[in-house]
Amino acid sequence: MRVLVLNGPNLNRLGKREKEAYGTFTLEELEQDLVEFSYHHGIELICRQSNHEGELIDWIHGAGDDALSGIVLNAGAYTHTSIAIRDAIAAIDVPVIEVHISNVHKRETFRHHSFIAPVSAGQIVGFGQNVYKLALHALLLQ
Amino acid sequence: MRVLVLNGPNLNRLGKREKEAYGTFTLEELEQDLVEFSYHHGIELICRQSNHEGELIDWIHGAGDDALSGIVLNAGAYTHTSIAIRDAIAAIDVPVIEVHISNVHKRETFRHHSFIAPVSAGQIVGFGQNVYKLALHALLLQ
Amino acid sequence: MRVLVLNGPNLNRLGKREKEAYGTFTLEELEQDLVEFSYHHGIELICRQSNHEGELIDWIHGAGDDALSGIVLNAGAYTHTSIAIRDAIAAIDVPVIEVHISNVHKRETFRHHSFIAPVSAGQIVGFGQNVYKLALHALLLQ
Amino acid sequence: MRVLVLNGPNLNRLGKREKEAYGTFTLEELEQDLVEFSYHHGIELICRQSNHEGELIDWIHGAGDDALSGIVLNAGAYTHTSIAIRDAIAAIDVPVIEVHISNVHKRETFRHHSFIAPVSAGQIVGFGQNVYKLALHALLLQ
Amino acid sequence: MRVLVLNGPNLNRLGKREKEAYGTFTLEELEQDLVEFSYHHGIELICRQSNHEGELIDWIHGAGDDALSGIVLNAGAYTHTSIAIRDAIAAIDVPVIEVHISNVHKRETFRHHSFIAPVSAGQIVGFGQNVYKLALHALLLQ
Amino acid sequence: MRVLVLNGPNLNRLGKREKEAYGTFTLEELEQDLVEFSYHHGIELICRQSNHEGELIDWIHGAGDDALSGIVLNAGAYTHTSIAIRDAIAAIDVPVIEVHISNVHKRETFRHHSFIAPVSAGQIVGFGQNVYKLALHALLLQ
Amino acid sequence: MRVLVLNGPNLNRLGKREKEAYGTFTLEELEQDLVEFSYHHGIELICRQSNHEGELIDWIHGAGDDALSGIVLNAGAYTHTSIAIRDAIAAIDVPVIEVHISNVHKRETFRHHSFIAPVSAGQIVGFGQNVYKLALHALLLQ
Amino acid sequence: MRVLVLNGPNLNRLGKREKEAYGTFTLEELEQDLVEFSYHHGIELICRQSNHEGELIDWIHGAGDDALSGIVLNAGAYTHTSIAIRDAIAAIDVPVIEVHISNVHKRETFRHHSFIAPVSAGQIVGFGQNVYKLALHALLLQ
Amino acid sequence: MRVLVLNGPNLNRLGKREKEAYGTFTLEELEQDLVEFSYHHGIELICRQSNHEGELIDWIHGAGDDALSGIVLNAGAYTHTSIAIRDAIAAIDVPVIEVHISNVHKRETFRHHSFIAPVSAGQIVGFGQNVYKLALHALLLQ
Amino acid sequence: MRVLVLNGPNLNRLGKREKEAYGTFTLEELEQDLVEFSYHHGIELICRQSNHEGELIDWIHGAGDDALSGIVLNAGAYTHTSIAIRDAIAAIDVPVIEVHISNVHKRETFRHHSFIAPVSAGQIVGFGQNVYKLALHALLLQ
Amino acid sequence: MRVLVLNGPNLNRLGKREKEAYGTFTLEELEQDLVEFSYHHGIELICRQSNHEGELIDWIHGAGDDALSGIVLNAGAYTHTSIAIRDAIAAIDVPVIEVHISNVHKRETFRHHSFIAPVSAGQIVGFGQNVYKLALHALLLQ
Amino acid sequence: MRVLVLNGPNLNRLGKREKEAYGTFTLEELEQDLVEFSYHHGIELICRQSNHEGELIDWIHGAGDDALSGIVLNAGAYTHTSIAIRDAIAAIDVPVIEVHISNVHKRETFRHHSFIAPVSAGQIVGFGQNVYKLALHALLLQ
Repeated sequence: MRVLVLNGPNLNRLGKREKEAYGTFTLEELEQDLVEFSYHHGIELICRQSNHEGELIDWIHGAGDDALSGIVLNAGAYTHTSIAIRDAIAAIDVPVIEVHISNVHKRETFRHHSFIAPVSAGQIVGFGQNVYKLALHALLLQ
Repeated sequence: MRVLVLNGPNLNRLGKREKEAYGTFTLEELEQDLVEFSYHHGIELICRQSNHEGELIDWIHGAGDDALSGIVLNAGAYTHTSIAIRDAIAAIDVPVIEVHISNVHKRETFRHHSFIAPVSAGQIVGFGQNVYKLALHALLLQ
Repeated sequence: MRVLVLNGPNLNRLGKREKEAYGTFTLEELEQDLVEFSYHHGIELICRQSNHEGELIDWIHGAGDDALSGIVLNAGAYTHTSIAIRDAIAAIDVPVIEVHISNVHKRETFRHHSFIAPVSAGQIVGFGQNVYKLALHALLLQ
Repeated sequence: MRVLVLNGPNLNRLGKREKEAYGTFTLEELEQDLVEFSYHHGIELICRQSNHEGELIDWIHGAGDDALSGIVLNAGAYTHTSIAIRDAIAAIDVPVIEVHISNVHKRETFRHHSFIAPVSAGQIVGFGQNVYKLALHALLLQ
Repeated sequence: MRVLVLNGPNLNRLGKREKEAYGTFTLEELEQDLVEFSYHHGIELICRQSNHEGELIDWIHGAGDDALSGIVLNAGAYTHTSIAIRDAIAAIDVPVIEVHISNVHKRETFRHHSFIAPVSAGQIVGFGQNVYKLALHALLLQ
Repeated sequence: MRVLVLNGPNLNRLGKREKEAYGTFTLEELEQDLVEFSYHHGIELICRQSNHEGELIDWIHGAGDDALSGIVLNAGAYTHTSIAIRDAIAAIDVPVIEVHISNVHKRETFRHHSFIAPVSAGQIVGFGQNVYKLALHALLLQ
Repeated sequence: MRVLVLNGPNLNRLGKREKEAYGTFTLEELEQDLVEFSYHHGIELICRQSNHEGELIDWIHGAGDDALSGIVLNAGAYTHTSIAIRDAIAAIDVPVIEVHISNVHKRETFRHHSFIAPVSAGQIVGFGQNVYKLALHALLLQ
Repeated sequence: MRVLVLNGPNLNRLGKREKEAYGTFTLEELEQDLVEFSYHHGIELICRQSNHEGELIDWIHGAGDDALSGIVLNAGAYTHTSIAIRDAIAAIDVPVIEVHISNVHKRETFRHHSFIAPVSAGQIVGFGQNVYKLALHALLLQ
Repeated sequence: MRVLVLNGPNLNRLGKREKEAYGTFTLEELEQDLVEFSYHHGIELICRQSNHEGELIDWIHGAGDDALSGIVLNAGAYTHTSIAIRDAIAAIDVPVIEVHISNVHKRETFRHHSFIAPVSAGQIVGFGQNVYKLALHALLLQ
Repeated sequence: MRVLVLNGPNLNRLGKREKEAYGTFTLEELEQDLVEFSYHHGIELICRQSNHEGELIDWIHGAGDDALSGIVLNAGAYTHTSIAIRDAIAAIDVPVIEVHISNVHKRETFRHHSFIAPVSAGQIVGFGQNVYKLALHALLLQ
Repeated sequence: MRVLVLNGPNLNRLGKREKEAYGTFTLEELEQDLVEFSYHHGIELICRQSNHEGELIDWIHGAGDDALSGIVLNAGAYTHTSIAIRDAIAAIDVPVIEVHISNVHKRETFRHHSFIAPVSAGQIVGFGQNVYKLALHALLLQ
Repeated sequence: MRVLVLNGPNLNRLGKREKEAYGTFTLEELEQDLVEFSYHHGIELICRQSNHEGELIDWIHGAGDDALSGIVLNAGAYTHTSIAIRDAIAAIDVPVIEVHISNVHKRETFRHHSFIAPVSAGQIVGFGQNVYKLALHALLLQ
């Protein structure tokens, strides 16, 4: 079972600011923690981050070509603006789980709508950095 | 650790119709399965279902009075229409996890908005009947 | 052929006020009249009224369990606000005919939209208390 | 008792296409069936169809001049766009019953609004070609 | 100076109903009165009425071909729905004066918008049948 | 002079949480205080609270049957969602005074609209628990 | 017959700028021309202009107290924003004719709506400075 | 305890028109009545009225400079259009009570929104001229 | 291969006005040019134009009855307002290609929406009178 | 080079309240500081403030008559509501620079729209009381 | 004649999935086919594809610098979200033809709006992979 | 004092087209001019431009890591569409000044909204290429 954890714009700033909202781990520490968690559950984990919409699309295509078992996707702000990422997800056969660290529904109205949600397998929102582990649990349960 | 699993309107029909969409278990079987899962994780589980908005509010108040550790709430259609349930959640100190069996974002527009989301701890949407177990995982991780 | 006539909130006030708009019969007289009409057409008629959204849902479920031939439903104000009743109708295999005594399209804008219409077999609107008999005619014609 | 059954645009295509949705009778067969039904109920029936908005208005005026007992009007797509037909109805003293063969509330959003509804006596929607007979029943009951 | 007075749908019903709102003259009497008024002011007046949108467009084109001095247009309900009439006006070089007998701004919201207004020379609204004479005054003043 | 003070969903939590916003009295203490205040002003006061929309409707009907002098109604969240309660008020001859403890116009947008306001005698909003006494003053002044 | 011509904000700039749009007369010249025109038609004309909303309201009240025969009102930009002027017109028994020199329907969207139109006797829009004379004609015709 | 009763545009017309809606007292009689009522309750009352938005703002500033105990404000139509009055209220430390004589929620939609409500202490709406006394009661209760 | 070129309202004015926008050919010259072009590509071309919505519908029905190979339709302003033409297209089995001479997306907002687009095979917009030839190319390529 | 600094409603309260948001200077101190700054840059500065919309319009007209080099305008709340001030700016040939002390885009939605912006030379928003000096810099740079 | 065929996000997936909707050719095969078609018509064709919005903008600039004869642009999902690509097109002198393989008007509402349409020469939509050849025809016809 | 001037999409086309709107300097000349201006005011200036949203985000992060004194940001079209850039600004401690060369409020409606404005220190809009110098002035004044 091979899974891609894909983080979008500004998530490379995790743990550097607003720790109470986004968690105390940096992205590197978080990814390390998830790799260990995955190893214990028999998942081979690949981690990527980019601030570039096009690069995220390229990687989603790649996950489709490699026939991965799933993508855990935190698309950050592109969640709310990118129809292109939506189309990329629709163009592969890999299930995508949409995650958000903060409860986006408590924030500005423009963060309430997700272009990705209708083409994802499900959403896990608002449990801090635990959303990544819960997404992996969801893949294991299926 | 004591947790309430609270199901709203029409969820007493689980497993009787549209099994591919909502799962093959009836509500009774689902609740039995969750109780066993909880027992293994050291959670005392209470299960309730009602089609009455007022009764759901009464039970949410009760969970607050009993200082439970959490509520896993599938409010069904009341998710989209009930400010009263939102206020009930805001009036207690127990964390509430909003769950939906189907991916509501693939369905009618009026199911995309949740009055409960901004006052819940988080949302888990669209993994079939597994959302209940994932919500218990989320409580255990906190 | 067994049919349920189900009346929602405030319809227990029929014939007590605004007779020119809603007809001169009280709900009891109307139900009695419909029972006689049904008897002549070979329909076994059951009549229920409630101001409680949850109770209406319970009865709709019951009609599904009893495999009735049809429901004539005047959901009153819940027509415009209740997704839960919509879901209850969608969760059974009994055809539901939506009726309204007054021409709702002549009234406030919020009465023009019906959550029930897309899941009902048809609508009969605005002929006074005759809408119930016309709905029974519709069931007989099918 | 003299009644006009007036069909609007595209209803001359009845029975030629999409029979499951609109019924198996052609317009001519339907009109013939309605004339016989009317004869048994003591109604003199006149049937007209046009794809021209202006012609429909002319006939509505004519029904007013002839003081008919009622008009059964399926205005087709003009239901949703023609204020002129609405005004024609408002300009005569003959009760108009709006009918639709399919359940328009299950279809595109622009078919949910009717300019005719507020000036009609009532609406009968969604029972297939039976809506015409139900409309005649409604006139007989008044 | 040759002018066309062009009346749209339902204006052939003038003076037959709702006289307090639309005036006591029938369309024939009104046209006769306007012809006399015009004669005294040196205007050759042509009067037309149709319930057909296409016929109104044809006549507007004709007025352009004949290079009339002006059109006094009461487009009735087509005012609010007909982009085709708007385009017909834009396609000729004859000034068009939009008139309405009743004060449309006191009526339903859908009567507040005019597709014709932006391509007309001006609007005269709400003075009863006098709007036609005022429109002729406006042409004389220019 | 007999008056009903009717409190809706979540108002049974008064004084238990967010005292600075909703006042320091519990609902029982508030009702006791109002009964004494009423006694001094010659009003016989009846107090009811329910989280159930249907039960509130039943009691409003009852107040109509008993021909009370007035209802002081804090419908809580149902203010913004319940057309059924609106219709119940419209179906009786007892004047209803709408009250809110907090200034709802400082809160979320969905609390700014009241379905009840157009059928109530008046509104008193935002003076804390004093709104109930002010409503009784209003009844005394009429 | 005594009539008030009341001009609102920025109309004191007439004839100083954008002459092709608003006419070549200054406000003083226009008023002088209208006084002469009125004299010939037996109208006693009073002319006022102010950039102050409150002053316009005061003068409208005054016209009501003096029982004038009519007000010709060009409220300028206040047409689109002033409910207070609307209420002032509704509070007197003098007919008000709304005029605009330019065709406001060719301009920005926010100029298409008039708060004054529903309480005025009629509107005359878009014939340049002739609108004032046409308004006086309208008063004479009534 | 010193209080300002501030009335906005068109309220100088009270008692002159539409007495059934706005009461039988003229503004002068109403103010006299309120002064007497205030004297008995130990309140020094100041009364002002203006049709000028700027003047109302000046007086609100003055009430802040004089550290009055409260302002009872009927801003009339400016309630719905004046952000400037809202800002004036926000710029002083005196509590403002918004009152309206008629039930604005029964009237045109544009009267349902108040720019003042979010910065006022509370609102009292729809009890006729009694709203002023109720507002004074509210100040006394605080 | 038999094809109908169908032009809607005001297209009979082609080449008479605004030549830079709509081309220098009159409708007759354009049709002649298209007939020759078609002849060279083995297409039998039929050309029709009408300002009447109903007549366009009749011809669309006729094309269906005659089982033509395609319709090139410039519905002019009816593109944006006619659900009846949309339904006519949906009621036949002939592919319809929607064309517009000017780039409608550069024009007023109400020209951006087409009721016909969802039921047409495709759209060709904005290349002047060449759109007709491109539409014939499209039919040839299929 | 002669410039008018024009402040609108409530800006006479500067420095008296909310100093952290609007700066520590009173309006008088701010104007004195700007006069000195202007003197060093060779600008003759005139300062005006009013809470009256009409007075602001009068002064803008005056600036046009005096052919000033520029107006620095903080229209306060009238920015969002006054089309009349917009028209006054459009009616003169003097460039107007719109300034706001606070970042209006962080505040309520109704403060995000400016009627003045499209007719002003530019906007400087959100740098505290420095916006006035930056506006003078902008005039000097042109 | 040199032309750029520019494909946006996800079009590198052509022919790999949903062949019935997007055609059976892969992007490479399609481009090869277009190059051959162009060679026969005397067009030098350049083909580019990118999932990166910025890269598409760079290439559009490059086409402007190289003074190409035209761009055939399928911007994919960026059609609906990218004002930056719109501005890039507006910043060069090369005509751009917007193409879409599928009929976007049959799909989700957010695909109905194009930011690119108003700055493109024309649109060709919905004829499958033939849209590229039709766009080249359009360039040849101009 | 170290400052980054960051230009977004299409600003590399400055001075090549539409010089009257965007100024006569190319981006290189503009940057050179700003470097000299900065040198005289003791500012170390860094200049960057990219058409790639992701690259702009990377540089904003870099400015945060380097603890610059400020960013002058002309985000071009991304101003109106990029929540990701907004989040990048919110994720650093460096004040950002939003600038636009043209007066965006005179242009299309979609250019009136800025996602960046609420997280920027202030905005300077519409003074041509001078906005960059004014932004540096603003930083110097703070």
